[in-house]
Amino acid sequence: MPAAEKKGVPCGLGPNGGGAPQNPWITLTTDFGAESPYVGAMKGVILSYHPEARLVDITHEIPAQNIRVGALVVADSTPYFPAGTIHVVVVDPGVGTERALVYAEVGSQRYLAPDNGVLALVVKRYGLARAIRLEERRFWRERVSATFHGRDILAPVAAQLARGLDPGVLGPPVETLKLIDWPEPRIFPDRIEGQVIAVDSFGNLITNIEEGHLDRLGVRSELMVEIGQWQIRGVSRTYGEHPPGELVSLLGSGGWLEVAVVCGSAAEVTGLGVDSPVRVRLKG
Amino acid sequence: MPAAEKKGVPCGLGPNGGGAPQNPWITLTTDFGAESPYVGAMKGVILSYHPEARLVDITHEIPAQNIRVGALVVADSTPYFPAGTIHVVVVDPGVGTERALVYAEVGSQRYLAPDNGVLALVVKRYGLARAIRLEERRFWRERVSATFHGRDILAPVAAQLARGLDPGVLGPPVETLKLIDWPEPRIFPDRIEGQVIAVDSFGNLITNIEEGHLDRLGVRSELMVEIGQWQIRGVSRTYGEHPPGELVSLLGSGGWLEVAVVCGSAAEVTGLGVDSPVRVRLKG
Amino acid sequence: MPAAEKKGVPCGLGPNGGGAPQNPWITLTTDFGAESPYVGAMKGVILSYHPEARLVDITHEIPAQNIRVGALVVADSTPYFPAGTIHVVVVDPGVGTERALVYAEVGSQRYLAPDNGVLALVVKRYGLARAIRLEERRFWRERVSATFHGRDILAPVAAQLARGLDPGVLGPPVETLKLIDWPEPRIFPDRIEGQVIAVDSFGNLITNIEEGHLDRLGVRSELMVEIGQWQIRGVSRTYGEHPPGELVSLLGSGGWLEVAVVCGSAAEVTGLGVDSPVRVRLKG
Repeated sequence: MPAAEKKGVPCGLGPNGGGAPQNPWITLTTDFGAESPYVGAMKGVILSYHPEARLVDITHEIPAQNIRVGALVVADSTPYFPAGTIHVVVVDPGVGTERALVYAEVGSQRYLAPDNGVLALVVKRYGLARAIRLEERRFWRERVSATFHGRDILAPVAAQLARGLDPGVLGPPVETLKLIDWPEPRIFPDRIEGQVIAVDSFGNLITNIEEGHLDRLGVRSELMVEIGQWQIRGVSRTYGEHPPGELVSLLGSGGWLEVAVVCGSAAEVTGLGVDSPVRVRLKG
Repeated sequence: MPAAEKKGVPCGLGPNGGGAPQNPWITLTTDFGAESPYVGAMKGVILSYHPEARLVDITHEIPAQNIRVGALVVADSTPYFPAGTIHVVVVDPGVGTERALVYAEVGSQRYLAPDNGVLALVVKRYGLARAIRLEERRFWRERVSATFHGRDILAPVAAQLARGLDPGVLGPPVETLKLIDWPEPRIFPDRIEGQVIAVDSFGNLITNIEEGHLDRLGVRSELMVEIGQWQIRGVSRTYGEHPPGELVSLLGSGGWLEVAVVCGSAAEVTGLGVDSPVRVRLKG
Repeated sequence: MPAAEKKGVPCGLGPNGGGAPQNPWITLTTDFGAESPYVGAMKGVILSYHPEARLVDITHEIPAQNIRVGALVVADSTPYFPAGTIHVVVVDPGVGTERALVYAEVGSQRYLAPDNGVLALVVKRYGLARAIRLEERRFWRERVSATFHGRDILAPVAAQLARGLDPGVLGPPVETLKLIDWPEPRIFPDRIEGQVIAVDSFGNLITNIEEGHLDRLGVRSELMVEIGQWQIRGVSRTYGEHPPGELVSLLGSGGWLEVAVVCGSAAEVTGLGVDSPVRVRLKG
């Protein structure tokens, strides 16, 4: 059963990452941009330390240094992987400063990332089971550049973990990870005030309002979603209940309230985007 | 021998997908855009159901909900894979409506896709050997979202097929698949009237006129290709016959008549693009 | 130990590519653009010839026909892979002309590419151990298109090499490869005059001035970097020595002098880009 079915029930990996699978998958999520040599350099280092490594790209197109989008992509994609998968996340505007690099166990997944909030959303959903600050240089590349810790620290550590290295040797444990500057929706008895947090490639406006928020407010068909000059009656179950071109609201596949246009782009139709306010209230 | 050598000679997989290879490759072709979490979510689900799955990305950059470009990419890439490869295609503007999802055997390849025409070009070239409508929910994820059937239906089905599941259990057989709104060229005794159907990353203008159409019209060196205000003498064999900067016509690698600029971009030079008319006639 | 640690000490693969690993990784670096069918076609052909092949994408987003960027990405990513990795590079504006296709051994890596300079930077750094001109058509696809030698020649040859084919049978040896039109910096006793050669996804301005050039000029903290109207004191070790927003110069992860903005984009701040002049001199 896919790990993400177990939402809210992290099963963990045991005290030493025990229960981790043999030769687990290693995923890569970065803001390098597809044109750069940095993606290839990281893959090359991983395969040099572990020629049998199993790599899978999540994306290399996180907007440069955008921790919020990185956190959202991590939260909405990595929980679906098999238990013990190692997710390497490189959105690292603070490279070369005193920010830490960490190993973290979250639900049944494992992460290597800068401690800058990029793991905060997935931790909020599944809970932090364990975290370690990467300090032991003997597991890093011999020469560590000032600007590319993904290649020089995270890649070799990921490869060695995949070969079975006990994460406990990587450095000292830490109790918490950095939070993210995240716009929480404001909850009132009769309404929720949130905002658009992302626009996907289909022009869907993805908001920071989650399934649980709606459930506490009322029956979905009795809700009114207000965004810009538009008022949308009810939170729909599917696009198919509406004709093409209609503006609808529905719970998207990541569990966020979305505003969409059936067979079209809500971003284009409304002219709205990230940070636009959204309000959900009970029909008057 | 690569499957695509056998153009027009589909060998099929036998009545139960028999002859399918052990642990076949699974390819992914989507319109998710590289920045989204959706690609990672699908890969995660596939690997959760089948940790030994072998994944290969074709592209995640089909323009959003563009079935025609999806159909073209599927037709020009998937036939080159080993027999029995499972191609998962998610260009799905009708998700959440009554459109079907299908399993299809086409030539020696296997496909999982919405039945919306995205397989129509490859079926036209190689013939539909078998199709099944996906209806058996026990092979899907437990919770099926309204908006992401790629993750919740196609991904687990692909993984289970790769592990050897008999496709016959997925649902009832269907006889035909949906056609695509495809602009066929108009054929006259002395000319062919077609149009540009795609512009590739090199600025080549790819038309809907195929090798067979030209062969029926006359000797290639005796043809005249007219596009916009330009007249091109002869359909060339290679770029190399012409100096850099010259506008030429030739048969592209996918079997379509292309208009190109040697070491340059025909789209930039001509200002033409998708839907621009093209005419091929015998030199007068 | 990663191959790239051995900079300047190519270990080679022996006379027949001996010492090459079993089932080596095959990387792909192209200018096809992510939307195209060409990437999938090449992967399909490789897997048809070698169903157990192990593929890894470096990038498919080299700007179309841009040999200089291709050469830079090859030089800054491929040396990190395990010895014997086969790197297929398709940036090929001369396809269909008389340009050669080559197999090359450079350091501990193997390459298949057009002989158009795209390997020139990696050869300059690690030395050409061996090169062969691909002429033996029996290792190619039966039908070779005029415009897609990546699919019809390089892909099947890569697959067969990965299965253990002796590269000596591919064609006659060649002594040298084509150079690239590369802007070398001008070295004076008291200064270096170079230029920006690339802008990465973070807006860092990457110059053609290398670590060795700086070392011969003087102590890094004593250098002055001049670009546009800006003067930057000293070549820094890390971003972290400076406050966010400050323009700094430092040695980037690929060994090139870079101009960067801490937590920002130097390209945006300065308005400068590829070909902008850069001067490094001793502080007066």
